[in-house]
Amino acid sequence: MSAFDDSHDPKRISWVESANGHPLFPIQNLPFGVFSTDRQEADKRIGVAIGESILDLKSLAKSALLDEHWRLALSLPALNAWFGHGLGDARALRLRLSELLSDPQAKAKVEEHLVPVTEATMHLPAHIGDYTDFYVGIHHATNVGKQFRPENPLLPNYKYVPIGYHGRASSVRVSGTPVVRPMGQRKAPDADAPEYGPSRRLDYELELGIFIGKGNALGEPIPIGEAAGHIAGYCLLNDWSARDLQAWEYQPLGPFLAKNFLTSISPWVVTPQALAPFMRPMPPRPEGDPAPLAYLADPAERGALGIRLETVLVTQQMRDRSLPPYVLSEGEAASAMYWSAAQIVTHHASNGCNLQPGDLIGTGTLSTDDPRGLGSLLEISQGGKAPITLPSGETRSFLEDGDELTLSARCEAPGAVPIGFGWVSGRVEGLGG
Amino acid sequence: MSAFDDSHDPKRISWVESANGHPLFPIQNLPFGVFSTDRQEADKRIGVAIGESILDLKSLAKSALLDEHWRLALSLPALNAWFGHGLGDARALRLRLSELLSDPQAKAKVEEHLVPVTEATMHLPAHIGDYTDFYVGIHHATNVGKQFRPENPLLPNYKYVPIGYHGRASSVRVSGTPVVRPMGQRKAPDADAPEYGPSRRLDYELELGIFIGKGNALGEPIPIGEAAGHIAGYCLLNDWSARDLQAWEYQPLGPFLAKNFLTSISPWVVTPQALAPFMRPMPPRPEGDPAPLAYLADPAERGALGIRLETVLVTQQMRDRSLPPYVLSEGEAASAMYWSAAQIVTHHASNGCNLQPGDLIGTGTLSTDDPRGLGSLLEISQGGKAPITLPSGETRSFLEDGDELTLSARCEAPGAVPIGFGWVSGRVEGLGG
Repeated sequence: MSAFDDSHDPKRISWVESANGHPLFPIQNLPFGVFSTDRQEADKRIGVAIGESILDLKSLAKSALLDEHWRLALSLPALNAWFGHGLGDARALRLRLSELLSDPQAKAKVEEHLVPVTEATMHLPAHIGDYTDFYVGIHHATNVGKQFRPENPLLPNYKYVPIGYHGRASSVRVSGTPVVRPMGQRKAPDADAPEYGPSRRLDYELELGIFIGKGNALGEPIPIGEAAGHIAGYCLLNDWSARDLQAWEYQPLGPFLAKNFLTSISPWVVTPQALAPFMRPMPPRPEGDPAPLAYLADPAERGALGIRLETVLVTQQMRDRSLPPYVLSEGEAASAMYWSAAQIVTHHASNGCNLQPGDLIGTGTLSTDDPRGLGSLLEISQGGKAPITLPSGETRSFLEDGDELTLSARCEAPGAVPIGFGWVSGRVEGLGG
Repeated sequence: MSAFDDSHDPKRISWVESANGHPLFPIQNLPFGVFSTDRQEADKRIGVAIGESILDLKSLAKSALLDEHWRLALSLPALNAWFGHGLGDARALRLRLSELLSDPQAKAKVEEHLVPVTEATMHLPAHIGDYTDFYVGIHHATNVGKQFRPENPLLPNYKYVPIGYHGRASSVRVSGTPVVRPMGQRKAPDADAPEYGPSRRLDYELELGIFIGKGNALGEPIPIGEAAGHIAGYCLLNDWSARDLQAWEYQPLGPFLAKNFLTSISPWVVTPQALAPFMRPMPPRPEGDPAPLAYLADPAERGALGIRLETVLVTQQMRDRSLPPYVLSEGEAASAMYWSAAQIVTHHASNGCNLQPGDLIGTGTLSTDDPRGLGSLLEISQGGKAPITLPSGETRSFLEDGDELTLSARCEAPGAVPIGFGWVSGRVEGLGG
């Protein structure tokens, strides 16, 4: 089966006029999310972004325009059940929506199911049963490793094992959720004992999130050739991190309170189908690196995510003075990731661990091998040793109260209509707001 | 408010005759679980164990015998909503059930809601939103630390930070679930590269599980004086561990696939109210150890869990020859735990991380400072260097296919009626069953 169908036709345009030429949501994207309208906060519904509108799939599914076998899953207030339908239905629904939104004759029947995006509040796309964070950004791992373990930045397992660890599902929130500066234990290198107080080294991490589609049963690994079929889509993910808490607590069992106070994600789930034109071959492994073990040897020719990433910062002073956002980094996912999304999924399930529809997996911080493409302030400020100066004249080593941090992503490729992820944003509040 | 009420009266007996003198479930215990009867597998209900029967709270709550404000939570197929009712209702329901089950005049009305335990299948007590595993067993941490880091078994943070990390919620299962030996990467110390294959060092870990009752909102820590009020109850927890996978994967972000293939728990949640007569003062910290930081200074006079723990092993050969279970260890929780359950809860929420009703927290392995009280084969066989010999003549360093491992727990105290937790059991299956 080809990765492409009519929904990928770059010439296809929509009767939703705002979609044509839309920087994020042209008809070639069609990302999924969960929204409610201002008047009905509690009425969460599944929708698909199209230009400046959201197509309400709950109401559309009640019509005869969609396969009735999809109706139940599309009428729920979270995407888990729909994600569980798997790849075949995901492709079929995308193709059907693309037809309905491009066929002028369908306009009369479909138009009534559109909601202006300005009237919608976005929510978490799915109930996240488990959240796992990986560490496949090799440049990030190297940069950070140098600070925590100068003698061996990349540990011997890194090039064999897609390193990951479990995160906190309950504190994953959608873009816009305020970032309450966490309290915690922090110990200065020259202090005898730790103190408990607000984190002084609050940071962000630029990641992509992977939503699991069809799950696997406990005890049944996912072969690498089938892994891509278990991915429902991608979002942006900010793994907020308190570096002082992390440095003190993380041995021997890994980061805990340094991370689990909040994880923010963008509201729209961009599907593998939408990303197909932007996928690229995995970058060749550096000379001398071991080949992946057989269970991780990905047969996919284009397993790398061709996604451009950008991080911007606006401080309170910049807001007050109407200064434009400061670009902290520009980079892309494909060259940052030592392991592909499929390898992540297969490794996670390789011991029989059961993944479930709607589970969220973070890639780890996606820094490129370029000082302009670093995915955290820990790297940008070299652990605080090299503060940056902002256009406002302020300096930053880590985030200060009032700072607003925004990650965004966008895909471009020759012959394809560009698509975007939108963004994930969060403003730091001091204790007590 | 006294920790004791009439439900703790050691002279109280039940008209459920099997409860009186019952080693696990006398009327002074009244643990909560979720069960279904053979004929209605899908019909999960909340019940309370009393002797050899289960009191069906779903059907009882429909009668006028219980407060109608409890009806909704008690009619659900998991305990989460009931746990969210919090301490006041937990105490009131326990007292009411104790009255109903001891008052001969109530027998006629209550008896119809009893189900023989032999007709019931037990399920997970709650939907586990997040599962966190701690590491508060100081003797275990020391024993294991010596094997992984001979030079510094206890890291500098151990006596300041109740060390914990996130585990996998999706693979928590109730007692009796088969243990499928996990596949994974393992690297011999003298090998150039790792291999992928079945774990050769499959182990168990003896832990207690803590179920969260009332939760806290994101960003709002739980003060230490209120922490006990957020605990709904306790169970036994077996943190199955693949030591070869663990040794290779765990740096720098902690254990992952070595643990998340299965976590088993006992089905009955023993409440803090039932445990009140068995609580003890925390053991004094050894001379020279730092005092807990103020946010962790527990004012409770009796914060230590006076729970006796036992681990037994039966191999296939022992089963075939009808040999009795071999006792791997006997110990108790109070002297094993460097941090109390309240300190665990407060630390977990100290950065604003939101805990939710039904969340599960493991204590970490509870080894005592005695070679007969070790909570894992890693410790008992000294990492495989000192295999044990079983009565069957077999030896064991780690678990082999067909081995069945059972953890059990029991409380005794002067002047109190002994109570039990029951057990959590699991039999190791090779790959492909």
